[in-house]
Amino acid sequence: MAEFDVEGMFRSLDTDRANVVWKWKLLEELRQAGLRADDPRVQRAVTWTLDAGAPFEPGQPEWLDRDQFAAVVREPVIARALQGDLAVSPAEFAELSRGVEQIYADLRDERSGEVAQYIPTLRDADPERFGIAICTADGQVFQVGDATTAFSVQSTSKPFSYAMALEQQGAPEVHRWIGQEQSGGTFNDPRLSLDANGKPQNPMINAGAMATLALVEPDADVSERFAKVEQTWTRMMGEAPGFDHRTFLAERDTGHGNRGLANLMAAKEMLNVDPRDRDAPQKTAEFYFAVCSLEVDATRLAAAGATLANGGVSPYTGERVFSAETAGRVLSVMGHSGMYNDSGKFADAVGLPAKSGVSGNVMMVVPDQRLAVVTFSPRLDEAGNSVRGVEVCQRLVNDFGLHPFKSLGAERGVEMSDAARRAFDGVSRPGTGSTGRYQAPAPGAKTATRAGELQL
Amino acid sequence: MAEFDVEGMFRSLDTDRANVVWKWKLLEELRQAGLRADDPRVQRAVTWTLDAGAPFEPGQPEWLDRDQFAAVVREPVIARALQGDLAVSPAEFAELSRGVEQIYADLRDERSGEVAQYIPTLRDADPERFGIAICTADGQVFQVGDATTAFSVQSTSKPFSYAMALEQQGAPEVHRWIGQEQSGGTFNDPRLSLDANGKPQNPMINAGAMATLALVEPDADVSERFAKVEQTWTRMMGEAPGFDHRTFLAERDTGHGNRGLANLMAAKEMLNVDPRDRDAPQKTAEFYFAVCSLEVDATRLAAAGATLANGGVSPYTGERVFSAETAGRVLSVMGHSGMYNDSGKFADAVGLPAKSGVSGNVMMVVPDQRLAVVTFSPRLDEAGNSVRGVEVCQRLVNDFGLHPFKSLGAERGVEMSDAARRAFDGVSRPGTGSTGRYQAPAPGAKTATRAGELQL
Amino acid sequence: MAEFDVEGMFRSLDTDRANVVWKWKLLEELRQAGLRADDPRVQRAVTWTLDAGAPFEPGQPEWLDRDQFAAVVREPVIARALQGDLAVSPAEFAELSRGVEQIYADLRDERSGEVAQYIPTLRDADPERFGIAICTADGQVFQVGDATTAFSVQSTSKPFSYAMALEQQGAPEVHRWIGQEQSGGTFNDPRLSLDANGKPQNPMINAGAMATLALVEPDADVSERFAKVEQTWTRMMGEAPGFDHRTFLAERDTGHGNRGLANLMAAKEMLNVDPRDRDAPQKTAEFYFAVCSLEVDATRLAAAGATLANGGVSPYTGERVFSAETAGRVLSVMGHSGMYNDSGKFADAVGLPAKSGVSGNVMMVVPDQRLAVVTFSPRLDEAGNSVRGVEVCQRLVNDFGLHPFKSLGAERGVEMSDAARRAFDGVSRPGTGSTGRYQAPAPGAKTATRAGELQL
Amino acid sequence: MAEFDVEGMFRSLDTDRANVVWKWKLLEELRQAGLRADDPRVQRAVTWTLDAGAPFEPGQPEWLDRDQFAAVVREPVIARALQGDLAVSPAEFAELSRGVEQIYADLRDERSGEVAQYIPTLRDADPERFGIAICTADGQVFQVGDATTAFSVQSTSKPFSYAMALEQQGAPEVHRWIGQEQSGGTFNDPRLSLDANGKPQNPMINAGAMATLALVEPDADVSERFAKVEQTWTRMMGEAPGFDHRTFLAERDTGHGNRGLANLMAAKEMLNVDPRDRDAPQKTAEFYFAVCSLEVDATRLAAAGATLANGGVSPYTGERVFSAETAGRVLSVMGHSGMYNDSGKFADAVGLPAKSGVSGNVMMVVPDQRLAVVTFSPRLDEAGNSVRGVEVCQRLVNDFGLHPFKSLGAERGVEMSDAARRAFDGVSRPGTGSTGRYQAPAPGAKTATRAGELQL
Repeated sequence: MAEFDVEGMFRSLDTDRANVVWKWKLLEELRQAGLRADDPRVQRAVTWTLDAGAPFEPGQPEWLDRDQFAAVVREPVIARALQGDLAVSPAEFAELSRGVEQIYADLRDERSGEVAQYIPTLRDADPERFGIAICTADGQVFQVGDATTAFSVQSTSKPFSYAMALEQQGAPEVHRWIGQEQSGGTFNDPRLSLDANGKPQNPMINAGAMATLALVEPDADVSERFAKVEQTWTRMMGEAPGFDHRTFLAERDTGHGNRGLANLMAAKEMLNVDPRDRDAPQKTAEFYFAVCSLEVDATRLAAAGATLANGGVSPYTGERVFSAETAGRVLSVMGHSGMYNDSGKFADAVGLPAKSGVSGNVMMVVPDQRLAVVTFSPRLDEAGNSVRGVEVCQRLVNDFGLHPFKSLGAERGVEMSDAARRAFDGVSRPGTGSTGRYQAPAPGAKTATRAGELQL
Repeated sequence: MAEFDVEGMFRSLDTDRANVVWKWKLLEELRQAGLRADDPRVQRAVTWTLDAGAPFEPGQPEWLDRDQFAAVVREPVIARALQGDLAVSPAEFAELSRGVEQIYADLRDERSGEVAQYIPTLRDADPERFGIAICTADGQVFQVGDATTAFSVQSTSKPFSYAMALEQQGAPEVHRWIGQEQSGGTFNDPRLSLDANGKPQNPMINAGAMATLALVEPDADVSERFAKVEQTWTRMMGEAPGFDHRTFLAERDTGHGNRGLANLMAAKEMLNVDPRDRDAPQKTAEFYFAVCSLEVDATRLAAAGATLANGGVSPYTGERVFSAETAGRVLSVMGHSGMYNDSGKFADAVGLPAKSGVSGNVMMVVPDQRLAVVTFSPRLDEAGNSVRGVEVCQRLVNDFGLHPFKSLGAERGVEMSDAARRAFDGVSRPGTGSTGRYQAPAPGAKTATRAGELQL
Repeated sequence: MAEFDVEGMFRSLDTDRANVVWKWKLLEELRQAGLRADDPRVQRAVTWTLDAGAPFEPGQPEWLDRDQFAAVVREPVIARALQGDLAVSPAEFAELSRGVEQIYADLRDERSGEVAQYIPTLRDADPERFGIAICTADGQVFQVGDATTAFSVQSTSKPFSYAMALEQQGAPEVHRWIGQEQSGGTFNDPRLSLDANGKPQNPMINAGAMATLALVEPDADVSERFAKVEQTWTRMMGEAPGFDHRTFLAERDTGHGNRGLANLMAAKEMLNVDPRDRDAPQKTAEFYFAVCSLEVDATRLAAAGATLANGGVSPYTGERVFSAETAGRVLSVMGHSGMYNDSGKFADAVGLPAKSGVSGNVMMVVPDQRLAVVTFSPRLDEAGNSVRGVEVCQRLVNDFGLHPFKSLGAERGVEMSDAARRAFDGVSRPGTGSTGRYQAPAPGAKTATRAGELQL
Repeated sequence: MAEFDVEGMFRSLDTDRANVVWKWKLLEELRQAGLRADDPRVQRAVTWTLDAGAPFEPGQPEWLDRDQFAAVVREPVIARALQGDLAVSPAEFAELSRGVEQIYADLRDERSGEVAQYIPTLRDADPERFGIAICTADGQVFQVGDATTAFSVQSTSKPFSYAMALEQQGAPEVHRWIGQEQSGGTFNDPRLSLDANGKPQNPMINAGAMATLALVEPDADVSERFAKVEQTWTRMMGEAPGFDHRTFLAERDTGHGNRGLANLMAAKEMLNVDPRDRDAPQKTAEFYFAVCSLEVDATRLAAAGATLANGGVSPYTGERVFSAETAGRVLSVMGHSGMYNDSGKFADAVGLPAKSGVSGNVMMVVPDQRLAVVTFSPRLDEAGNSVRGVEVCQRLVNDFGLHPFKSLGAERGVEMSDAARRAFDGVSRPGTGSTGRYQAPAPGAKTATRAGELQL
C-alpha cells in the first residue's frame, strides 16, 4: 500500500479543483471498477468517514476532504479499485458486463423447459424470472435482470455443505462415508445412489448431501447445527441468507424419497448418526431440507461462488472461510457431478465447475478469472437444470473463450498433404526444398483468435 | 521469422570464432531447449543440410558454415528453440526435467500393486519397469527410465478412437450411439456399462470404445479401417506405432466379455454395424482388440498426448490431426471418466485430464502448459490404474502447483475474529479504527507461494 | 350326525361295563385321533358337561354317564374323532406322528447355521431349541420338542397380512400396490425390492409386506388396526397371540432399512397412506414391526397354517377367516416366494408352499393332506431360513412322498433297448413278438412304491 | 393282466353275435377311451395282427376273430382301455373333452395380443390359428382346432433341455452353473439374467437355457449333440420333431442378445465350454437357436408334456426318458419361472406348472390328473405368453377345479357371530346350549361343490 499515491489520486478525482472529492464521483469511479455503492466495504468506509465529520446540509451533495479521502482509501479494496488493480481490470469488467448483458438480452425469449412441479413454492415460481449476477474474487459485481429475486438455494447448497464437512472432519473421514465418483444415475435414484455397501456415490446427489450434512457439527444440537451453516453462508456472502419456510415445510412433508435414502444409509451404518436414535435418519433429512431452503438471490449466491473461485476466501471480507484445498476439492466434484445427470454433457460443452438447483439456479465458477456467475431462471430441462442457466454458461464460455480445453492450439496446425506426409516420413530428400513444405505456426502464438476472448 | 537474427545467432554459437558452428554444439543447445537429437525435425534439417554439402572426413567433428546454418534455422522449431521461444522455455524445461527426475527417483521403491493377470503378455510384463516421458506442444521431450520400452496401448487408445469418430461423424452422430456421462460402475460391468436402451455410458468404457470404433471408417473393410487408425497414430507421434500381435491374439481369444457387450449393443441396435451380418459385433470387438494392441512407448505416447495438449496439432509435424473442438471434447471426457472407477478421486487429487491402460500406462495432459506426461509402470491398483503412474501425476501436480482448482487464492484470506466479524456486520461503529481490523491481501497477489510452482 | 350310533359308541367305550365312560378313557381315545385334551372344543364339551352334573369326590376318577356322554358327542369333532372320520385317520395320524418323531430325533444333532444377529432378542435365542408341531384341518395336533416355546412370528406374518389385505380390498386393488413376481433379490435389497415405479415385487418381501399392511384397515387408527390383526390371528389359532414387546422395540429402533423402503414407496406414491402425513411411511413400518412381533409357538402357528390348508377355515372353530380363494392366493405366493432367496431351491426340493421367519420358524402347508407343519429352531442358513426347519420339510416330503411333482409315474417306465426302440419306430415287423418287448405298468398303478408313503 | 377276461370282453364287443369283433367297433371303443386310431400302439397291435392273418377282401369291413382279438389285447394299453382303466376314465375323458371343446369355442373370438415380431417366421404366423391338445400319461389324446399345425417349439424347449442336463450331469453339477431362483426380470434382460458372478438365475431364461445346453453331451460334436436332443424329443413324443430351418437362420442372424449373454457367461467362466475356443459361446448360442427351432404341433408337444406328467415316462412307449426325480425338478422350475415375467401371476391364477414359447404355445402339466394340455395361438400378451394359451389354462383350472390351492375347504366354514366368538373364547358358560352355536361341517366333506369338478 505504501506506493499508493493518495495525493495524486485525490487530485485526479478532484476534477472541479475544489479540494474535495464528490462522494458521487468516487462511487461512480468504484462502480466502473465493479464495486457496488452498497458493497459493504465501500459503504462502511465512506459512510463511517462521513459520519465522523460534520453533518452535511440537507440537499447538498456530499464530499470528502483530503483527510477524509485518505481515511476512505485506507480500505484496501477501494485503493486497489482506484488503481485498477482488482481481480478483473475495469476495462475487462466493462467488456464482460457488456457481454453478459447481450447474453441476457439474447436469451430472454428462450422459454423452453418447465418449472419444477414437486412442491407448491417451486411450482408457483414465476417462469419468466431471469437474472444473472457475476461476482469476482474481489467482490466486483455485475447484475442484470432479476438478480436480486429471492429463491431457495436447493441443491446448490451441496458443494458448500461438502466444504463444511471437509473443513470439520478432513477429507479421509468424509470419504469414509461418501464416495467421489459420479453415480451414473439420476440424483435421487435409490438403486444407483448408493453402492452395494450403502455408501452414497458422491456429495452432489441427495443421499451424499445428507451423508455430508451428518458430518457437519455432528455433536451440536440441530438448531446450533443449522445456525453454523447459516453463519458459513453469511461469511461467504457478506450478508445473511434468508429462509424459505414454506419450501422447507413442503419439502419436509413430501420428502419421502430423501427420508427413505437417509434410512437406507443408516441401515447400512453409512450415516453418521446415533444408532440408538431411530429418528436420526429423518432428522438428518430435515436438516438437509432446511439447508436446501436457505434463501439467496443470484447476486448473493455469486458471492458464495466467488468464495470458491477465490480459493475459499470471502470476496467481501477477505476472510478465509475454507482452505484452498477444500475449495479445490469442491470445485473438482462440481466439475464432474454438479449438473445432475447431464454433468458429462456440461463438462464437454462448458468445461467449468458448476452446480444447479431445482429452483432454477446455476452457479458456475471460472477459476482462471476468479469469478463466479449465477443465473436464476426457473424453467428446467429434463435433467433438472435451468434451461437458460445452462445456456448462459455455454454462451459465456463460447463468447469469451473460457473452455479450458477447447481453445488449445486453435490457431495452430496445417492440413498436411499426402506428399508432405511422405516427405516428412523421410521418403523424399533434400534439395527439394522440402523444409518449406508446410507453414509452421508463428512462434509464441498463444494469442487466441476468437474476437471476444477475455484478456485477463 | 523475419526478425530472427541469423547472423547474431551464428556468431553467438561460433564460440571458437572459427566461422563455423559445430554440429555437436548446435545439438547441445537444442537439447537444452528440449529438442532431442533424433527429433525428426532436427534430424531432417541438420542431416539434409550436411548431406547436401561436401562430405566430412571420417573422425573429424562436423560443422555448419554460415549458409548451412542459415539453411538449418529455416526449420522453424530450430529457430524458435535457439530463441528460447518454445512452448516451455529452456529454464522452465530444465526445472521441469529436474523435478520429474526427482519424482522418478522417489518412486522407484514404490512396489505396491499387481501386474494385470488376464492375459499372458500382460501377466509376463516386468513389474519393475518404470519410465516417464514428457512431450510439449512443440515436441520438446524429457525422458527418464524405461521411456522407450514398448507396451500395448490398451485403454489409452480410447480417447483417440473417440477423437477419430468425432472427426468423421460429428459429435451429434457420435452421441446418438454413445453417452457422455460417467458410468458409475467398473469399466466392463455389463450391468452398468449400458443404459436401459443398450447405449454405452461413455467412450472411455469398453462398450463405449467399441461403439466408437464402429463409427470409425465404417464403410471401409477391416484392414483399411485398421490402417486408418494406425495412420492417425503415426500422424500424432511422428512415427508409426508397432503392433503387439501376441497380445491381440490373447485378448481376442479371451475377450468374451467384450464380445458379449458388443453383441448386447447390437441386439439393441446400438452398434453401428450391418444388422444382416451376424458376425459384425464380434468383428467390432476384434477391431477393438487390435487397436488396444497398438504398441507404443512412453515417449511416443506422450507425443500423442501432446497432440491433445496442442489442440489437435501434432507436436512434431505441426499437422492438424484433430480440430481444437475435438481435442477439447476428448480432454473433457478424460477429465471425468479417464481413470476407470477412480476417475472422481483422480479429479479431486490431480484435477487434470488423464487416461490409463492396463498395460500400466497413464497419459496425463496439462493444458495450461501444453504438454503431456506419460508414465509406464505395470503394477496396477485395484481400479486398474498404474500405481506409480497415478503417483507421478499426483506428485507433478503438487510439486508444480498444477491442480487447476487447488491454488486459487491460496495466498489470500485471514481468520476473522468474532469481534471483527461483529464489526463487519455493522454492529460496531466508526472511530474504532475498524478499517484496520484485518490485513487485506496484497493487490494482484496471483504469485503462488509454493516453492516449485512452474512459472510458465 | 343322525347316523352316529351314540349308544354303540358308549358301549364300546364302557369297557368295564360300568355304564359309564371314564373321562381318561375318552380323552385317550381322542388323543389317538389327534385331539389334545386341551383342545378348546374337547375341554369345553367335557368340562361343561361334567360341571353341569354333580361334583365328583376328590381323588376319584371322573366319568360320564349315558346322558353326559350323549351331550359330549354333540360336539361334532368329538363324534367324528370317535368314528375315525377326521381329516387324517387315526392310523395315518399315528404313522405321521411316529415319522415326525423320528425326523425330530434324527435332526437333534444338526447344529449348523447361526442364530439371527441383528437384534438382541433374536441374538439371545437359545440355539438348541427345536420343536415341531402339526395341525390338521380338523385341529388334530401332534407336537414334539419345544413346540410350545414362544417366539416372534416375524416374516411368517406376511402371508396372513396379505390374506387380510385381499379380504378387505380384493385382489385387483391389492395388486395395484404390490406385485406378484419373485424379486430375484434378497428380501431387503432396496435395489431389487421395488420395480422402477417403486412397486414392491411381492407381498413376501419386506417392502411388499409393509405395502400390504398399508391396505389392512387403512381407515382405522393404529391401535384399532393392530387389534384387528391380533383378532384375525386369534380366530385362526383358537387362542390369542402374545406380543414380544422387547423385539418390537429393537426392530423399531434398528429398522432403518424398512423405514427407508417405506419412505421410498411413499415417494413414488406406492404406499397407501395419507400423502399429507409425513410420518405415515414410518408409522407403516412400525405397524409392520408390531405384526412381526406377535408371539406364537409352533403349535399355535401350525393352527394358523392349518387355516390355510383348510381353505381359510379355522381348524378349531370352523369359522371361515378367509375365503378359499384368498387362502389359495396366499399359498400360491408362498409357493414361489416364501423361503427368501432360496424359494426356487425349496420349490425343487420340497415343492410345497412354506414361509419362514428369522426367529427360526418354518411353516409349511400340505394341501393334499390338509395340514400344516411348523418347525421352530433358531439357527439359520445363509438365506435366513431355519436349517432344521428346511430339513424337516425336506424329510417329511421324502419320507411320506409328499412332493407334488416327484413321485409321478415313479413306478412306471422301462429302459428301452435300442433294438426295442427301432421296433417301436416301425422298423421291425410282427412275428417278432415285439409287443412283449417291454413290461407295461400295472393298470391303475397309482400306489406309490415308497415305504412310508402316506395313504390319506 | 391275468385277471383280464378276454373272452368276456370279446363277447361284449361282438354285438352282432358273429363271433368276430369288427375293427371299426374296436377302434371306436378305444377312441372313446381316448386312444386315437393312429396311436402307434393301437396301430401296431391291430395292423400287425391283421397283417399276420389272411388278407381281407377289398371293400369288406375288417374284423378280428377270437385269437386275433386275444393277440390285440396283449397290448396292455388296449386291454386297459377296454377295461376303462387308463389314467383318465372314459367318462371323465369325455367330460374333459367336452369342456375343452367349450373353452375352445368360447375363446375363438379372443383376438387381443400381438404376434411376436422379432423374426419373419414368427411375424408371418397366422394370428388366427388356435388349437388345443390334451395328452394323458397313457397317451389318451383329445384335439381341437389347429392341433396339428406345426410351430417352432421356442422357449418350451427349455424345460426339456434342463431335464437332459440333469440326467447327464446330475443336479449338483447343473446347479453349479445355473441357479434355481426366479430372475425378477424379463427373460432376456442382461442386467438381471446373470447374478454378480455371471451365473444365470435359472434354466428358464435364455442365459440359463444356453448354460443348460452347454451341459448336454458336452463332449460330442455339435451335430451329434443336436441329434441326441432330437432323439430325446422323439422318445417323448413317439414321433420325431421337425426342424424349422428358416426360423433357425433368422434367430441365428438376429440373436445378438443371446450371443451377448453367452459371451458374458463365458467371460465369467460360467459356461461349460472350452476356454481356448473363442467361438465357443456363439456356438452354444447356435445350439440353443437350433433347439428352439425344433418343430412340433400341439398334439406332439402335449405328449412331451405328458412325459413330465408321467414322471418321465413316455406316454406312448412306456419308456422312461427321464427319472421321476428329474421330471419333478423340471415341473418345479416351470411352477415358478415358466411363464416369463408373469410366472407369479400365473401361479396365482392357475397354480400349475407351465411353459410358454414365443411362437404362441403354452404347455401346462396337470400332475394330479397325469396329463398335459398344449395350446397353440400366436397372439402374445406383453409378457410374451400366448393370450389364448393363458386363458385356456385359466379356464381349465376354473372349470374343473384344478387349482391345487384354491378349492381347499371351500365347502367348509361358518361366519361366526360376535356372540359365538365370545362364547368360544370361554366367556359364556354351559347350559346356554353353546355346543350348538355353530354348524360344524359335515364330516368327510371333501366333495367339491363346483359343478364341473373333475372326479378323477
